[in-house]
Amino acid sequence: MADTVRLTLDEIRTLSTEVCIANGMSSSNAEVIADVVTQAEADGTHSHGLFRIPGYISPMKNGRVDGQAVPEVTDVSPGLVAVDSNNGFAPPAIVAGRPLAIEKAKSQGIAAMGLRNNCNLNALWWDVEPFGDAGLIALAMSTSRSLVAPWGGDTALFGTDPLAFACPRAGKPPMVFDFATSAAARGEIMVAAREGHAIPEGWALDKNGNATTDPAAALEGVQLPFGAHKGNAIMIMVELLAAGLTGGNFCFEAQEQFAAFGGDSGPSNAGEIIILMDPSGYHDGFLTRVEGLFERIAAQDGTRIPGDRRYANRARSAADGVECPAALYQQILDLKAG
Amino acid sequence: MADTVRLTLDEIRTLSTEVCIANGMSSSNAEVIADVVTQAEADGTHSHGLFRIPGYISPMKNGRVDGQAVPEVTDVSPGLVAVDSNNGFAPPAIVAGRPLAIEKAKSQGIAAMGLRNNCNLNALWWDVEPFGDAGLIALAMSTSRSLVAPWGGDTALFGTDPLAFACPRAGKPPMVFDFATSAAARGEIMVAAREGHAIPEGWALDKNGNATTDPAAALEGVQLPFGAHKGNAIMIMVELLAAGLTGGNFCFEAQEQFAAFGGDSGPSNAGEIIILMDPSGYHDGFLTRVEGLFERIAAQDGTRIPGDRRYANRARSAADGVECPAALYQQILDLKAG
Repeated sequence: MADTVRLTLDEIRTLSTEVCIANGMSSSNAEVIADVVTQAEADGTHSHGLFRIPGYISPMKNGRVDGQAVPEVTDVSPGLVAVDSNNGFAPPAIVAGRPLAIEKAKSQGIAAMGLRNNCNLNALWWDVEPFGDAGLIALAMSTSRSLVAPWGGDTALFGTDPLAFACPRAGKPPMVFDFATSAAARGEIMVAAREGHAIPEGWALDKNGNATTDPAAALEGVQLPFGAHKGNAIMIMVELLAAGLTGGNFCFEAQEQFAAFGGDSGPSNAGEIIILMDPSGYHDGFLTRVEGLFERIAAQDGTRIPGDRRYANRARSAADGVECPAALYQQILDLKAG
Repeated sequence: MADTVRLTLDEIRTLSTEVCIANGMSSSNAEVIADVVTQAEADGTHSHGLFRIPGYISPMKNGRVDGQAVPEVTDVSPGLVAVDSNNGFAPPAIVAGRPLAIEKAKSQGIAAMGLRNNCNLNALWWDVEPFGDAGLIALAMSTSRSLVAPWGGDTALFGTDPLAFACPRAGKPPMVFDFATSAAARGEIMVAAREGHAIPEGWALDKNGNATTDPAAALEGVQLPFGAHKGNAIMIMVELLAAGLTGGNFCFEAQEQFAAFGGDSGPSNAGEIIILMDPSGYHDGFLTRVEGLFERIAAQDGTRIPGDRRYANRARSAADGVECPAALYQQILDLKAG
């Protein structure tokens, strides 16, 4: 048997939809999750593609997440949209609230969409890119559960608390970045453990609170913020905005619930905030002027406009499809069979 | 002569007001700048206190900044306030736009104040703390001129592009942080050069684009973003929001003007954005819930709630006054005499 299977993006989308539905997800939610998975594969962020399918199914099976959840959108105030995900995955809740959030941002100049009671498993660029496509600037932050110690401490409190940003561009897809505000994503440490190589200093402490470069010790210990005390401050901001403001769980609250349910269940009730701004709110020249900045970044050797590598992958994947490890493909077929 | 002079906060405020007025600043602007200077001294951030007075006066003398500028506040849209600083310093412009921005944030749930054509010399916590006092969450970013290379590059493009955040607390001053999104503030490298000690790796490149720990070489070279590619992404966001969105200069544009005026003049036309959110916008429990997060951070040895050290200094300074180097005190008296 070949080690990999080549799949078209349509095949990935159909398979993802079917396996989610076969495992109890509503078809409308499955369509959105299939888009998340397909886009991740297309863009080369495989950690959030087909590889993540079991991660969507397992919490539905044990009741941690409701695959049938119907998000509730509330028009809270002139600038605020609230979405209660009703214990579902975040992406269908974002899709549900998006039209009202876009309308508010365009009429008010600035608006926010706050999500609560959801489960965030996807890469956060998926959340912001459509707002960039709609001509808006978007800044998103989300919470999960405790994996990261505050700077100077040694006990998990924050999540990997990702932050994403999209900026529209004239005649091009938006400039988009996203990253975990921990020094590393959990998955990066897991890959190092599997492949048997050391992790950089500053990523984690071992279970005794000592700095470690051993990924296995790191996974038993605690992760650290990116950028020392400055990244720590950003992490506090993510917790306050994505959870405190929206009414979602702080990561430590999600962790306490997780532990109370035996460590593999209990609703995460996570939070997410998406702040939207109209780039023409203050003047008409935004789209022209930002190209001047991007040109000057790109003109320096060794730099990169955030998101460009994903877009290059996306163009290639649309033409050629993507390689999927055969074992993973078989695992998903098995999950589809139930 | 003693090496230091002890001054009360009232004395600092009076002296700062008088020296600004004596050098051509309007009395209303001087009152605001004196508040910036006095608060910085009170909070122990001396780099932005009396030490900065010559930095306010010199650009007024050479025409780079208009000390008499009257900021123009515009009600742009339901969620947006614009302030044209008319080539003045940022603090009077912030004071001018603050009431309308607060009103909008409270009625809309979210609002922003965008400043353009200003000169940013103060520590950015001063800009956000009053919004926290008014019960709002505030996120501010500002630009200056090029000192920092984009990640992977070797040519100055971004400024030190500070970011500040305030979160209101029940019965306490707000939690506030601010930091340069470069690895170090310019002043930190200047202090190392003066005191003759090395700077950490990752702060700067020398003029040939090589990593350096020599502060003198760093000052001739270029600074680097904090937190590697993640901090670099944050810096791009600061430029886009503080300058691109508001209509202020990108740092590279300010730098080009600066160079065109012989390197010590020309308006900076800098930009700043302050995003404001009502913490009761989504639910009533915010102020109670955030204390749970802060308690858990503070419970870990070695951690700190951002801003607490400044507030401790402030309490001490109100009672005891502040020590000022005698030479600096004399320099300011001389400036006052004209």
